[in-house]
Amino acid sequence: MAQSEHIAVGVAGATGYAGQELMRLLARHPRARLTAAMGSSASSPHRSLPGLAHLWDGAIVPLDVDLLARDTDAVFLALPEDASADVVPALLERGRRVFDLSGAYRLRDSTQRAHWYPKVAAMPDGSTYGLTEQCRAELPAARLVACPGCYPTPAVLALAPLARAGLIAGDIVIDAKSGVSGAGKKPTERTHFSECHGSVSAYGIFAHRHGAEIEQELGRPVTFVPHLVPLDRGILETIYVRLPAGAGDGAIEAVYREAYASSPFVRLTGADLPTVKQVAWTNFCDIGWKVDAASGRAVIVACIDNLLKGAAGQAVQSFNVAFGFDERTGLWQ
Amino acid sequence: MAQSEHIAVGVAGATGYAGQELMRLLARHPRARLTAAMGSSASSPHRSLPGLAHLWDGAIVPLDVDLLARDTDAVFLALPEDASADVVPALLERGRRVFDLSGAYRLRDSTQRAHWYPKVAAMPDGSTYGLTEQCRAELPAARLVACPGCYPTPAVLALAPLARAGLIAGDIVIDAKSGVSGAGKKPTERTHFSECHGSVSAYGIFAHRHGAEIEQELGRPVTFVPHLVPLDRGILETIYVRLPAGAGDGAIEAVYREAYASSPFVRLTGADLPTVKQVAWTNFCDIGWKVDAASGRAVIVACIDNLLKGAAGQAVQSFNVAFGFDERTGLWQ
Amino acid sequence: MAQSEHIAVGVAGATGYAGQELMRLLARHPRARLTAAMGSSASSPHRSLPGLAHLWDGAIVPLDVDLLARDTDAVFLALPEDASADVVPALLERGRRVFDLSGAYRLRDSTQRAHWYPKVAAMPDGSTYGLTEQCRAELPAARLVACPGCYPTPAVLALAPLARAGLIAGDIVIDAKSGVSGAGKKPTERTHFSECHGSVSAYGIFAHRHGAEIEQELGRPVTFVPHLVPLDRGILETIYVRLPAGAGDGAIEAVYREAYASSPFVRLTGADLPTVKQVAWTNFCDIGWKVDAASGRAVIVACIDNLLKGAAGQAVQSFNVAFGFDERTGLWQ
Amino acid sequence: MAQSEHIAVGVAGATGYAGQELMRLLARHPRARLTAAMGSSASSPHRSLPGLAHLWDGAIVPLDVDLLARDTDAVFLALPEDASADVVPALLERGRRVFDLSGAYRLRDSTQRAHWYPKVAAMPDGSTYGLTEQCRAELPAARLVACPGCYPTPAVLALAPLARAGLIAGDIVIDAKSGVSGAGKKPTERTHFSECHGSVSAYGIFAHRHGAEIEQELGRPVTFVPHLVPLDRGILETIYVRLPAGAGDGAIEAVYREAYASSPFVRLTGADLPTVKQVAWTNFCDIGWKVDAASGRAVIVACIDNLLKGAAGQAVQSFNVAFGFDERTGLWQ
Repeated sequence: MAQSEHIAVGVAGATGYAGQELMRLLARHPRARLTAAMGSSASSPHRSLPGLAHLWDGAIVPLDVDLLARDTDAVFLALPEDASADVVPALLERGRRVFDLSGAYRLRDSTQRAHWYPKVAAMPDGSTYGLTEQCRAELPAARLVACPGCYPTPAVLALAPLARAGLIAGDIVIDAKSGVSGAGKKPTERTHFSECHGSVSAYGIFAHRHGAEIEQELGRPVTFVPHLVPLDRGILETIYVRLPAGAGDGAIEAVYREAYASSPFVRLTGADLPTVKQVAWTNFCDIGWKVDAASGRAVIVACIDNLLKGAAGQAVQSFNVAFGFDERTGLWQ
Repeated sequence: MAQSEHIAVGVAGATGYAGQELMRLLARHPRARLTAAMGSSASSPHRSLPGLAHLWDGAIVPLDVDLLARDTDAVFLALPEDASADVVPALLERGRRVFDLSGAYRLRDSTQRAHWYPKVAAMPDGSTYGLTEQCRAELPAARLVACPGCYPTPAVLALAPLARAGLIAGDIVIDAKSGVSGAGKKPTERTHFSECHGSVSAYGIFAHRHGAEIEQELGRPVTFVPHLVPLDRGILETIYVRLPAGAGDGAIEAVYREAYASSPFVRLTGADLPTVKQVAWTNFCDIGWKVDAASGRAVIVACIDNLLKGAAGQAVQSFNVAFGFDERTGLWQ
Repeated sequence: MAQSEHIAVGVAGATGYAGQELMRLLARHPRARLTAAMGSSASSPHRSLPGLAHLWDGAIVPLDVDLLARDTDAVFLALPEDASADVVPALLERGRRVFDLSGAYRLRDSTQRAHWYPKVAAMPDGSTYGLTEQCRAELPAARLVACPGCYPTPAVLALAPLARAGLIAGDIVIDAKSGVSGAGKKPTERTHFSECHGSVSAYGIFAHRHGAEIEQELGRPVTFVPHLVPLDRGILETIYVRLPAGAGDGAIEAVYREAYASSPFVRLTGADLPTVKQVAWTNFCDIGWKVDAASGRAVIVACIDNLLKGAAGQAVQSFNVAFGFDERTGLWQ
Repeated sequence: MAQSEHIAVGVAGATGYAGQELMRLLARHPRARLTAAMGSSASSPHRSLPGLAHLWDGAIVPLDVDLLARDTDAVFLALPEDASADVVPALLERGRRVFDLSGAYRLRDSTQRAHWYPKVAAMPDGSTYGLTEQCRAELPAARLVACPGCYPTPAVLALAPLARAGLIAGDIVIDAKSGVSGAGKKPTERTHFSECHGSVSAYGIFAHRHGAEIEQELGRPVTFVPHLVPLDRGILETIYVRLPAGAGDGAIEAVYREAYASSPFVRLTGADLPTVKQVAWTNFCDIGWKVDAASGRAVIVACIDNLLKGAAGQAVQSFNVAFGFDERTGLWQ
C-alpha cells in the first residue's frame, strides 16, 4: 500500500492515559500515519510514553490547532471537555474529521448540555454519538464523532437492544465498578494510592453526567452509581432490570444475538459471567446475564477495558468504520 | 477483678481468617479467659498466628468436643457449616453457650434450611439470629447465637429499620463488593492472587444463601449480587430502593437515628458516603445515603470489615451483651 | 488513677498518615490525655479521622505553637522537617518535651545536617536519636527525641548489634521495599494509584537522607536502595552482609538474643523469614536470617509497619520509656 | 505468503500462565500456524483462554506426544520440568525443534543438573541456553532451546556484558521482586490473594535453582534473593556490584551500548531507572544504572514482564531467530 493511502492522524492530549493508548494504537495502525502528537507540554515520547519509543520517533509538542489541522486528515482529541469545546469548531472549520473522547459533544439535548457542558453552545452539523455498534451507518459521513464515555459504553451496549425490544419493565439500576485509571492521570486525594488501596467507594450518586448520557441513549431514566475499586484498568457493570411477563433467558439471548451478530467486539457469554480480567487490554465488551424465571428479575454483567473499548479503542474502531476500513483494523490482538 | 470473674472461652477453627480475629480479640478481652483453641491440626500460635504470640501462650490443638466443653463456659465456632452442625448439639447438651459464625443455624424456615444447610435437622431451643443491634434483648437468655454472615450484616442493618418503618416501596437491589478474605483461607482458583488482582467478578446470582438470610430478616424478597473485588478486608454494599410518596432524606435519617440511638457500632454518615477504608480493622458499620427527591429513589451505602463486624467482632459484641458486659468491651479501639 | 497522673500530650500534624496513627494511639493511651491536636487547617476529627471520633471528641485546630505549649506536657510532631525546625526550639524553650517524627534533628554531624536539613542550625541540648531499643537509658532525661525514620528503624535494629559484635565483614547492602503510605498523604504523580498499581520502582539511589541516618548509627558506609511496592503499610528490608571467618548462624542468633532479650517489640524469627503481613498494624520489628556457611554470606530480613514501629508507634514507645511507663503501654495489641 | 511458508507450531501446557501467553503470541504470529494445543485436560479455548477465541478456533486437547510430533514443525513446552524431561527426548527423536520454557535443560553442569533437575540424565545434542541476545548465532542450528527462567533473564542481560568486560570487582548481589504470576497458576497458600495482598516476602535464599542458572551464565558466584510482591506481572531486579578502580558510569554505558547495539528488546535507560509498569505487557528488558564515583559502587536496575521476556516472549524471539525471521516478528507491539 502506498504511503498516500494512509490517513494522516493527529492526537491532542497524547500524554494522558487515554491519549497514551491512542498513541499506542495509532502508531502501529496499518492504515494510519501518526503525523502530530500534542500534549500540555513538549516532551519526547521516550520519556512520556516509554512503551512507544520503538514504534514512533516523533516529538510531542504543545497543543497548536493550526499545526494540528495542517498536518492531519483526522484528529483524535483526548482533552478535558473545555479544551475540546475550544478546539473542535476550529478543526471542523478546516475540514478535519474529529474523534472527540471528551464528553463535550455527547449530549444532544441543549438543556442537559448546558448543565453538564456549559461551554458547548451548539452541536455542529455532522455530529454523531460514536458508540460504534450503534452508529456504523452514520460514521462514513460524520464530521465529529463524540466517542462515548467509559461508563456509558457497557451500559448502553447491554441495555439498548433490550430496551428497543421491549424487554425492560420497570426500573433500571446500573452499579458500575471502575478501575482508577478512569479518573485520569492528574494526582488527587481521591486517586492517591493509599486512599484507594484496600478500599471501595461510591461517588456521583444522582449527579454524574454519564447518567445523563446513558439516559439519552436509552430514552428512559436509570439509577446509575459509579464506584472506584482498587485496580488500574477495567469496568464491570452489574445491571438490574425486570423483564415483562413471559420473557426469560431465551428472549434476552435472542435479542443480543441478533443485535450483535455483526459486531466483532461484543462477546456474549450467557450464564458464564464475564470478569474484568478477561477484557483488560482488549477492545471487547463482554456481556453475560442471569434470569430468575419465577420473578422475572434479570441481572446483566458487562465488562470493558475503560481505556480501550471505553476510550481509545472505541475511537479507533469508529475511525476504521468512518474511513471504510475493516472495523477490527489495528485492534484485533 | 478476680480471675473467677472471667468467662472461660474457647475457639474452634482458630486458624482460619475469622478464627484468627476471634483469637486476637479474645486473647486481649478484659472479661474473657481464652482456655481452648482448636484447629484442623495442632500448631503453635507463633507459627499460625504470628500476631498473637505476645498475647497468648497456649497451644492450638486438634478439634475435640469433649475437651472444648470441659474447659470453657462459652465457645466460638469459626468452622465450616457442616462441622458446626456436628458440634453444636453436643456443646449445647453440655450446657455450653455457643456463638456460631457459620451459617448452619441462621435460617429459621425449615424448607430454606433444608436447601442451604441440609445437615441441620432442627433449630435448638434458645437459638437467636445474632445481629447484635437486633437481638440485644434475647442475648442474655440465648444458648446458641447464630452470628450473621458478612453480607447480611450491612444489608440488614441498613434495610431492616426502613422496612419496619414502611419506607421501602418496590424492589430492593443489594449490590455487594467484598474483599477476598471473605472467601476464606483455603486456596482456590477463584481466590488465587493472579486471578483476583486487576479483576472484579460477580457470582452467586439468584443462588447465594446469604440472599435467603437477608430475605428472612427483612421479610421480603431482595435481589442480592455479591462481587469479589481486589482487596483483603471489607465489604461495601450499595443498596437501591424506592421510597413511598412523600418520604425523603429526612425520613430516612429520622428512622436511622432512632433505630441506632443506642448502638455504638453503627455510625450514620448521611450524604458523606462511607468507604471500606474507614471501617477496615474496626467493628463499625457505617451507613450513608442519598435520595433523589423528585423520583423517590434512594441509594444507601453500608460498609463493614467482613472479619470483624461481619464475623469475629460481631460475635464478641453479642458475647458481651449475652454475659452482661458493656457491648464495646474489647472492641472499642 | 487520678486525672492528674496523666501526661497531657499534643499532636502537631494530626491529619497526615503518621499523625493519624499518633492520634489513634494517644486517644486510647491509658497514661496520656490528648489535649491538643493541630493540622494544616481546622477540621473535625469525624471528617479527618473517621476511625477516631468514638475515642476523642476534640477539634483539630491550625498549628499554633503558643497554644500547643500551653496545653501540653509533651508534644508529638508529625510535621515536614522544615516545620519541625521552626517549632522545636520554641517548644523546648517553654519546657515541653518533644517527640519529633521528622528527620530534622536526627543527624548529629553538622556537615551531614547542613546538607540534608539546612534549616536546622544546631542540635539542642538533651537531644536523643530515639530508636527506643538503643536509647532507653537516655530517654528519661531527654528533652528532644528525634524518632528515627521508617527505613532506618529495621536497618539499624538488624545491623547495629552485628556491627558492635564485629560480625560484619565487608560491604553492607540494604534493599528496602516500602508501602506507599511512607511517601505521605500529599498526592503526587509518583504516588498516584495508577502509577503504583502493578509496578515496583527504585529511587533515591546514593542520594537518600535515610542512608546518611543509617550510616551514622552504624558508623560505617552502607549501600541503601529504597523501592516503592504496591501496598499501603509496611517495609521489608533485605540486608546483605558477609560474616568474618568462622562466624555462622549461631553467632548471629546469639548476638540478637542478647541484644533484644529485654526488647518486647523485636521478635526474632530465625530461618522462618518474616513478611510484611505479619507486622502490619503492629509495633513489632521482626528479624529473620539465613547464612550460607560455606561462603560466609548472610541475608537478614527485617520488617515493620512503617506508620507504627517506623513512625507513631516508636514515638509512643519512646514516650513510654521517657515518662517511666511500661514500654508496651498503649501498644500491646 | 503461501500457507506452506508458515511454520506449524504446537504448544504443550497451553492453559498455564506462560502457555496462555504463548497461545496469544503464536495465534497471531504472521509466520506461525498454530496446529496443536495441549493441556492437562481437554477444553475449549473460549473457556480456558477467553482472550484468544477470536484469534484461534482450535481445541485444547490432553497432552499426547505422538499427536504433537505429527502435527508440528516446532513445539513450545510450557510444562513442569519433570513433564518436559519426559517429553523432550521423544520430540527430538522425531525431528521436532523444541523450545522448552521449563528449567529441565538449562544447567549444563551435570552435578548441578542432578541436584536441581534429577530427571534429566543428559543434555541432548544441539541444546542451547536460549537467552536470545546471547545465543543468536547458535539458534539456527539448535534442536532444543532451553529458554531461560524469568529471574535469570534480567540478571544475565544486566551482568554478563559487565562480567565479560571485567567491570565487576567483588561480590554480586541480586535482589529480585517478582509479581505473583511467576509462581504459576496452581493455587497455593503462598499465592492466595489474602496472603499476598498487602505483603512482601523473601524466599529461596541460598536455595533457588535460578541462582545456579545465573551463576552458570556469569561464571561466578552471586547472592540471589527472590521476593514476591503484590502485583501480577513483572520483575524488577536491583543488582549491587563494585566497579574496578577507575571505572565509572561511562564504562558501564559503553559496554552496554556495544553489547546491545543490535538487540531491539534491550532498552538502556541510564540514570532514568526503569519500572515494572513500563515493561509490563511487552517483550522489553529495560536496564538503568547509577554509580557512586567516589566508592565505585554501582546499582543496576533491570525490569521485564516475567510472562513475556521472562517466558513466552523470549521463546518466540528465539523461535524467530531460529527460523530466520526478523527477531521482532509477532512481538513488536
